[in-house]
Amino acid sequence: MVASSSLRFDLKSYLKERQRQVEAALNAILPPQDPPLIYESMRYSLLAEGKRLRPILCLASCELAGGTAAIALPTACALEMVHTMSLIHDDLPSMDNDDFRRGRPTNHKVYGEDIAILAGDALLTYAFEAIARHTPEVPADRVLKVIAALARAVGAEGLVGGQVVDLQSEGRDDVNLETLHYIHTHKTGALLEVSVVSGAILAGASEELQEQLRTYAQKIGLAFQVIDDILDITATAEELGKTAGKDLAAKKATYPSLLGLDASREYADQLITEAKAAIAAFGAEADPLRAIADYITARKH
Amino acid sequence: MVASSSLRFDLKSYLKERQRQVEAALNAILPPQDPPLIYESMRYSLLAEGKRLRPILCLASCELAGGTAAIALPTACALEMVHTMSLIHDDLPSMDNDDFRRGRPTNHKVYGEDIAILAGDALLTYAFEAIARHTPEVPADRVLKVIAALARAVGAEGLVGGQVVDLQSEGRDDVNLETLHYIHTHKTGALLEVSVVSGAILAGASEELQEQLRTYAQKIGLAFQVIDDILDITATAEELGKTAGKDLAAKKATYPSLLGLDASREYADQLITEAKAAIAAFGAEADPLRAIADYITARKH
Repeated sequence: MVASSSLRFDLKSYLKERQRQVEAALNAILPPQDPPLIYESMRYSLLAEGKRLRPILCLASCELAGGTAAIALPTACALEMVHTMSLIHDDLPSMDNDDFRRGRPTNHKVYGEDIAILAGDALLTYAFEAIARHTPEVPADRVLKVIAALARAVGAEGLVGGQVVDLQSEGRDDVNLETLHYIHTHKTGALLEVSVVSGAILAGASEELQEQLRTYAQKIGLAFQVIDDILDITATAEELGKTAGKDLAAKKATYPSLLGLDASREYADQLITEAKAAIAAFGAEADPLRAIADYITARKH
Repeated sequence: MVASSSLRFDLKSYLKERQRQVEAALNAILPPQDPPLIYESMRYSLLAEGKRLRPILCLASCELAGGTAAIALPTACALEMVHTMSLIHDDLPSMDNDDFRRGRPTNHKVYGEDIAILAGDALLTYAFEAIARHTPEVPADRVLKVIAALARAVGAEGLVGGQVVDLQSEGRDDVNLETLHYIHTHKTGALLEVSVVSGAILAGASEELQEQLRTYAQKIGLAFQVIDDILDITATAEELGKTAGKDLAAKKATYPSLLGLDASREYADQLITEAKAAIAAFGAEADPLRAIADYITARKH
């Protein structure tokens, strides 16, 4: 399926161009300011190398729904800010205690725990400011919907809730598939889902289209996490840009540990098939989303 | 001045009634949910005894500007959520390392550092969701303005920026009045300012009225902090509900340490006079804001 999509659509060039666009926007929307230390810390993590998957999904979804990438760019930046905040806080000593991220020392290793916590707080806050202040082309009621949806995806009903259950599950050997599913649909899935759905809302998509895109996003979100679990076992630290084999060392419940490696790979493939089925009604305008779905199962890091 | 205001206006009853109203709204807008631990932690700090000064200022300002308290109540709750988040994160071991707050063990002493950080993140996020989702009576463009103003007051240009400079100033003996002023106008002042201004925006106040109220808020915000510094020296831990004498022990720059105790008290009085002058054009409808200004210099904790 990778091959057939690639015949029509050059994903590599598309992602490269979009990454460039998103990174230019991130750099512009959060320039160095006073007090210098906090902006350095925010920019250190925000501008570190990354796939920019969430912003790219938002832009692609907005375009599929008839909007322009330009109207979704501040929201796309906000999604990357929220994602970066979650990485900075997750890496803290009292959480996952990680020293490396995106191939570099984690934020608190460079700036200290206090500044890392505050940089996360400031990025989270600025995400909402960026959307509220920089989306004047879109009717205000739609922008409010995007803010409400993003907040729900990030808070105790979403990402934070997933992280809490993840922390509570650590070191326990009775974590079942249901709990693992909860953790991932909240910790990773919710933000990927709102990345896609927010683009559609900004474009003024119908409820029906929003639901199709939501299904697509839920499927690729879960597949993304299954692949992440697989890569933690099969990839090297160099490929990942972060510590490998952490889940095994921590005896963490993962899809491979509960389902086995082969069944996990099949599960991921099935989810990607279902994701593409959800947007099957569309023509070439959905090629970016199809190719991104394929890319998720094909990725090596 | 306390007496002359009190003749016309019963501040004690007013504050008691408003505290009751705000606390009922906080309890309703953030009920216990799954996963239980994070909601317990959020509610532990949010519903702990507090003056509710920021929400009350927001409601009073909205009414002065011709709106109802009802339309400002979700924003009022959001202000208390943001304030609570800042207390939870400030109290962390890597920041101010406080064991007691509002007369009870701090959040991380009860729930652990990891959950305390996440409870702060979730409260900060939910603040924006509460405003975006629960203010349907107000035109969406005004609600967006409130969200943008709140975010700016909380982020690296506001509260977080003030906290960063405060952390950087710790243990230094060369902190001057200018730096102290920066710290307080950002760490405490920005949120008090947006508390007042957001109520006015929701009510559709003119730019002129917004500016009058902004001046009022800036003056009482600074006075609040000067009094806080004075109370740290003169009040007991029991009165404060938190550790007393911390500033002295930490050799922290404060208004009393830079200006002396008497001059600090005079400065606070002068700020309150200026705050009331900014709203002198109003009649009895501004009595709550006048009485709150007096209350700030009169408070014992």
